[in-house]
Amino acid sequence: MTALKIQVNLTDSKKEKPLSDHLEFGRVFTDHMFSADYIEGQGWTNHRIEPYAPLQLDPASIIFHYGQTVFEGLKAYSSKDGTIKLFRPEQNMKRLNQSSERLCMPLVNEELALEGLKRLLEIDQEWIPTAEGTSLYIRPFIIATEAYLGVSPSKKYKFMIILSPVGSYYKEGIHPVKILVENEYVRAVAGGTGMAKTAGNYASGLKAQQVAAEKGYAQVLWLDGIERKYIEEVGAMNIFFKINGEVITPALNGSILEGITRKSVIQLLQHWNIPVTERKISMEEIRTAQKNGLLDESFGTGTAAVISPIGEFNWKDEKLVVNNGEMGGLSERLYNTLTGIQTGKIEDPFGWVIEVEKPINQL
Amino acid sequence: MTALKIQVNLTDSKKEKPLSDHLEFGRVFTDHMFSADYIEGQGWTNHRIEPYAPLQLDPASIIFHYGQTVFEGLKAYSSKDGTIKLFRPEQNMKRLNQSSERLCMPLVNEELALEGLKRLLEIDQEWIPTAEGTSLYIRPFIIATEAYLGVSPSKKYKFMIILSPVGSYYKEGIHPVKILVENEYVRAVAGGTGMAKTAGNYASGLKAQQVAAEKGYAQVLWLDGIERKYIEEVGAMNIFFKINGEVITPALNGSILEGITRKSVIQLLQHWNIPVTERKISMEEIRTAQKNGLLDESFGTGTAAVISPIGEFNWKDEKLVVNNGEMGGLSERLYNTLTGIQTGKIEDPFGWVIEVEKPINQL
Ligand SMILES: Cc1ncc(COP(=O)(O)O)c(C=O)c1O
Ligand SMILES: Cc1ncc(COP(=O)(O)O)c(C=O)c1O
Repeated sequence: MTALKIQVNLTDSKKEKPLSDHLEFGRVFTDHMFSADYIEGQGWTNHRIEPYAPLQLDPASIIFHYGQTVFEGLKAYSSKDGTIKLFRPEQNMKRLNQSSERLCMPLVNEELALEGLKRLLEIDQEWIPTAEGTSLYIRPFIIATEAYLGVSPSKKYKFMIILSPVGSYYKEGIHPVKILVENEYVRAVAGGTGMAKTAGNYASGLKAQQVAAEKGYAQVLWLDGIERKYIEEVGAMNIFFKINGEVITPALNGSILEGITRKSVIQLLQHWNIPVTERKISMEEIRTAQKNGLLDESFGTGTAAVISPIGEFNWKDEKLVVNNGEMGGLSERLYNTLTGIQTGKIEDPFGWVIEVEKPINQL
Repeated sequence: MTALKIQVNLTDSKKEKPLSDHLEFGRVFTDHMFSADYIEGQGWTNHRIEPYAPLQLDPASIIFHYGQTVFEGLKAYSSKDGTIKLFRPEQNMKRLNQSSERLCMPLVNEELALEGLKRLLEIDQEWIPTAEGTSLYIRPFIIATEAYLGVSPSKKYKFMIILSPVGSYYKEGIHPVKILVENEYVRAVAGGTGMAKTAGNYASGLKAQQVAAEKGYAQVLWLDGIERKYIEEVGAMNIFFKINGEVITPALNGSILEGITRKSVIQLLQHWNIPVTERKISMEEIRTAQKNGLLDESFGTGTAAVISPIGEFNWKDEKLVVNNGEMGGLSERLYNTLTGIQTGKIEDPFGWVIEVEKPINQL
């Protein structure tokens, strides 16, 4: 009876909602948020839904100094059949806990967290945009809140879920992106925190991203930090290559994030009997395939864009064009299938989609 | 006339000060704090000293999600001659800006920041403990405060300085520490953020530190993330070895922090005509030196402990005892000289110490 544990305090001043064609990613937040507090010895307490409001934190809170924090990102879709759909949310709660494990943070009760998310979605359901391609972005996160400057795991945490309506990633249709292969900066190495969804990984990537943007590239492709040869991932996406009919994605090696879209793409490909391999793959191998006309397609996978076809790699000033800079057939098929399943337009043979009842009940 | 730019708003309810023999590191903070706000296009504004109080931050603030933040750590000492002494504070402000550069954050005016610190110390001077070995720990830090979930540099920041009275690091005399050489986890690699003082580096180190503590070791010695052979640094300290009369410390390689204590130790050794070298040094070399009876001493250097003699390394379950587990003569000489200069007991031939006038003036 986890639902009973969540206190609800509704706002008395609802905010104005943005127009669905004016939605920008991650700038506007809904009327409510979910929170819970952790205190060492007591565990997680005070699970609640309350009006979205600033946090009050001591300036010495560990989050500000030592970055002990983890987060997740997923989406809710408003379906034509009147339900709210979530795509594999239990995978996000599981990964949240995996990240917490690496960061010496307390685990959350995954079911209770999911229950909290569902109640929050029920309450703020009017915020889920309905236009084609739009969705409600969900950001669960945990921050260390103990006021202590010692470098040690915090004894207090705050778990929160906030929601932000987001526009279509592909307003002007899907155009493959250009990617800069990064040779100077490194995102993560084995033994570090690359496999966890934690703030420091993203802070460390800003610089390379800035340099890439100045050169006209959408994203950075990270190479391994040891030999600077093997492909890791792209910005906030995992990466796939179709080479001579076979689909290849870098194996999980301890320094890349295990994307839920990545996992779903692998399952879909297997379901379709398209050969897919997780292995170490070098940039040199990609270059050779491209030179020999065998690099059929490449695409990134992630919650934000779902599938992001790649039209060009720039590696050490050499431009490697993929599929004439156009979206490939496999990218398109994956995109249509995944977004179709997510929004309920296509049947879900995997049991990936979870529905939230729209009527506000049990309040 | 930078001083004019700092607004001062004093508290009307001063807190009780802790007894000097009950001081713990980083748990109690003084009555006031220094703050300034940065807004893209306007630069740093609203420099002020105000009562120490919780921060109000939107839950979507970039600091909570992508860890864009830098910090510093230094100390103020209450000197017998009635002055407040700071040890090379301009070096900390310079390093703060170097860290910010790596994290795509705006630079602060180093002089103005130092001026803000001095005014804050004047105002909270009663908080500087006077007992032997005590000091006031100073924590300048900058956090990204824009409410935006996009992974890009924040357009808003908050720069703060908070103060915490700290007890003697060596209440029970100086006892050399035992250090666990870390083989599984990695702190940083070249191309990452290791040379910056930023939150993510510390979050990533918590796990190894926890494992070490469980095994009875005070700190972790980080090896390079590439070959796992070369010595980097210890927890929050740089490391030195005295081998057969020569002092060696790992060279700055892009993945270790350039400690101000490290820099000062090198200068002192040169001043004393003791050979000191910055170079790559492997754990195997340390082991060989120890086996051959040539590892005279080893010590860590950092603001917290100043000099922390090392009595034992555990490397892959082999225990390498240094100097019979006792503090060596060089460690002691460095400790006495540095703390002597810092507190004004010994003449400062380098111009390292800066004095803050005690009387509250210009308010
Ligand atoms: C570093 C990184 N890699 C990959 C991904 C893709 O993961 P998912 O498919 O779960 O969104 C993300 C996030 O979304 C990410 O932040
Ligand atoms: C990672 C790390 N290395 C070394 C040091 C030593 O630097 P400093 O001597 O400036 O205190 C510190 C901090 O104090 C640190 O955090």
